[in-house]
Amino acid sequence: MDKIYDVAIIGAGPGGYVAAIRASQLGLSACVVEKDTPGGICLNWGCIPSKSLIHQASEFAALADMEKLGIRVDRSGFQYGRVQAKSRDAAKTLARGVAGLLKKNKVDVLSAVGSIAAVGKVALKGGALDGKIVHAKNIILATGSRPLELSGFVIDETMVLSSTGILAMVELPKELVILGAGAIGCEFAHVMNAFGVKVTLVEMAGHILPSEDFEVAQVVDAAFRKAGIDILVGTKAVSWKTRNGRSAVSIDKGGQKSELCCDKMLAAFGRVPNTQGIGLEMVGVRLNGRGYIETGDYGQTNIPGIFAIGDITTSPALAHVASREGEIAVEFIAGRTPRPSKVPPDLVPSAVYCEPQVAGFGLREDGDKVNNRNVKKSVFPYRGAGKSVATGKTEGLVKILADVDTGEILGAHVVGLNATELIHELLLAKSSEMVVEDIAAMIHAHPTLSEAVMEAARGINDSPIHL
Amino acid sequence: MDKIYDVAIIGAGPGGYVAAIRASQLGLSACVVEKDTPGGICLNWGCIPSKSLIHQASEFAALADMEKLGIRVDRSGFQYGRVQAKSRDAAKTLARGVAGLLKKNKVDVLSAVGSIAAVGKVALKGGALDGKIVHAKNIILATGSRPLELSGFVIDETMVLSSTGILAMVELPKELVILGAGAIGCEFAHVMNAFGVKVTLVEMAGHILPSEDFEVAQVVDAAFRKAGIDILVGTKAVSWKTRNGRSAVSIDKGGQKSELCCDKMLAAFGRVPNTQGIGLEMVGVRLNGRGYIETGDYGQTNIPGIFAIGDITTSPALAHVASREGEIAVEFIAGRTPRPSKVPPDLVPSAVYCEPQVAGFGLREDGDKVNNRNVKKSVFPYRGAGKSVATGKTEGLVKILADVDTGEILGAHVVGLNATELIHELLLAKSSEMVVEDIAAMIHAHPTLSEAVMEAARGINDSPIHL
Repeated sequence: MDKIYDVAIIGAGPGGYVAAIRASQLGLSACVVEKDTPGGICLNWGCIPSKSLIHQASEFAALADMEKLGIRVDRSGFQYGRVQAKSRDAAKTLARGVAGLLKKNKVDVLSAVGSIAAVGKVALKGGALDGKIVHAKNIILATGSRPLELSGFVIDETMVLSSTGILAMVELPKELVILGAGAIGCEFAHVMNAFGVKVTLVEMAGHILPSEDFEVAQVVDAAFRKAGIDILVGTKAVSWKTRNGRSAVSIDKGGQKSELCCDKMLAAFGRVPNTQGIGLEMVGVRLNGRGYIETGDYGQTNIPGIFAIGDITTSPALAHVASREGEIAVEFIAGRTPRPSKVPPDLVPSAVYCEPQVAGFGLREDGDKVNNRNVKKSVFPYRGAGKSVATGKTEGLVKILADVDTGEILGAHVVGLNATELIHELLLAKSSEMVVEDIAAMIHAHPTLSEAVMEAARGINDSPIHL
Repeated sequence: MDKIYDVAIIGAGPGGYVAAIRASQLGLSACVVEKDTPGGICLNWGCIPSKSLIHQASEFAALADMEKLGIRVDRSGFQYGRVQAKSRDAAKTLARGVAGLLKKNKVDVLSAVGSIAAVGKVALKGGALDGKIVHAKNIILATGSRPLELSGFVIDETMVLSSTGILAMVELPKELVILGAGAIGCEFAHVMNAFGVKVTLVEMAGHILPSEDFEVAQVVDAAFRKAGIDILVGTKAVSWKTRNGRSAVSIDKGGQKSELCCDKMLAAFGRVPNTQGIGLEMVGVRLNGRGYIETGDYGQTNIPGIFAIGDITTSPALAHVASREGEIAVEFIAGRTPRPSKVPPDLVPSAVYCEPQVAGFGLREDGDKVNNRNVKKSVFPYRGAGKSVATGKTEGLVKILADVDTGEILGAHVVGLNATELIHELLLAKSSEMVVEDIAAMIHAHPTLSEAVMEAARGINDSPIHL
């Protein structure tokens, strides 16, 4: 371990492994220290296996369509364990892929728990490398986050599951209470409900998906209720106790207390940064009041030579943000001037993969006020796009908030089939400083859902045709 | 009928009805003459019902996934008639929608066969309006196209079906020979094969989807063969005869003659413009050598006051082209300067909805040569995007051809799940004169297939991460 790396990265999630590959592409020598499988939570116990469950849930739900065609479906032999196994296969395939990419890019993968020993030094713990020190000119911290545990809901992975626990689950509960209706809560509500679990979604805020536009969240709310999911908003989960082998969850809605019975709970309150035990105190890396690492334009912490990216920083805790921050940091280290530098918050797309899907960026109608801007809103419903009728997926809308004087897109929100793909056309218009007219004037293939994007853009300056 | 309309439109397909609505939005008085249901072939007997069949075919195919989960599926009671009925419902819903939009926009819909009687006069035939004359300052011809009939394969809708005939079909044949592997041929090959019909696809050109990029077509070819479709390229269908109540189709591959047996044939050779019986000769509207109407920048024919849009003109025979040409013509009539005027051919997306889907625009690697350009190709496979692995749909690729000196996108081609949506981000970059770097530098939501678009863009100037 006498080698001095240009970059040592602690954590091989979507922030760390992308930073490592990019570093290598730029001619830097790089290693990544990872205690588990490369790919991090996202790939192994997050985005990827959950997308496999969601895809299978949609196929399972489509069985009802097929029964209407005279096909007989006997679900009695259904084994959820096989659904789960398939999701594990997807994660394993991709983890192997990441390991292959790291190898191809000559990144050293060090299997150990890494922590800062000093500036330029990473201490390794556990496994064959226990006690070793890695030397590196630059250290990037990419240790990610873990589920937030609230008092009263200690995660035991038996009664109170984390997102990891529910992804590991091989048998379905009869009744599930999901605590928190953010992206993770809503995705599992969709999956579990589709597979026949009785789901209750409990959310403190005034609407589900509280960090998404309210109008978009409303569409999901209506679809969820129609699909049989119970939704309690403005409701706080207080505590739980066992009763006859099941759980009784105490909830409080504006002072009105009641109880929900279920077999399991999913704690989806949010996530907390993994800033403990990584040696921040050894060199004095500063945290903000909420426990996140404040970083400069290129991911620099207050200590020269030490960078931080992803969920441990103050930017949105999203895989694609971590990846970009990783690239920005190593490009800076390599002497390049990355463009853009700091990830602009209004150019970060959110994406929720429940059905209907949700994606958005920038200004929300119920978000911060915009001064000195003549903001206009345009909403185009999916059912105005022929493709949605042809596929029977008419729930959804495209919403654009634009400066009507300049045509600048200030925010956009899509809910419905393939929303997480459709958002990118709108985001490109925003990120490249185009105007709504650029989208409105462009020919869109017929019949596609992207036509709804075009029609929404027309709604700012002109009239949509199909409304 | 003494009223003088600003615009009379013959044909209420996607060209005509959109032109009529747009005319009304611009303050013009408009009528549309239509012999059938508003919406035209596309909506009633084309794009829309076929997308319904395709969607149901995918759900049907997904039954195999479900069987692996322990679910028992008995297909013996399957009634294709119900699939077809559902596709008719979709078409009817949308036709009602179009009728409603026309009414809301105060467009008069005249149920009759329309033809030019003179400049400013449209003669009506059939129904209650038989013999009437409509007066209009401007006439827009939007009569569309019909299936091309080749000698030897007269369409009888019993043995030799057109696309309309196969959409009307309520019982599946055992064996189907599809003559022509363009968009229509490939879409029905996918649908019929998914529902268990033995399909043979016969194409004269060297590869299926001859108007798409060869590399993209190759992916479809491989997927089709894997799914059990027989493909014969470089093969001419010569004639057919009945034998024991079935058909024997004579084919010729480079002089080698053989026979294919089947129950029905689908003639998908192409389409011909409906320029007969619409009174072109009454005023002298000129056709080109191939029988299409040549038009000016705003759809003007050689006769002042008479415009032509859609499949009867020389532009690509696509619904979205017809719609845009309709808008351009009425905007010009209303005294506006539409932007862009003539639809730029390299900004017209193609879209094929078989599985895997295909979409593309602009330069093809096997298309016209580009002079004085340093063209670079970048291909990124779908399997490099985590979403494709999570959903098990790893077949596909994104291909970009760009000018490596300027970063200008010259052409882009996508094959795979949701290709017909993904193409729009690339098309926006092209149509708004952005460069590949604009896509490469933008954060894309993870995990989406749009990440493959970003990675392909990186492949022009830089390195993709996941390759």
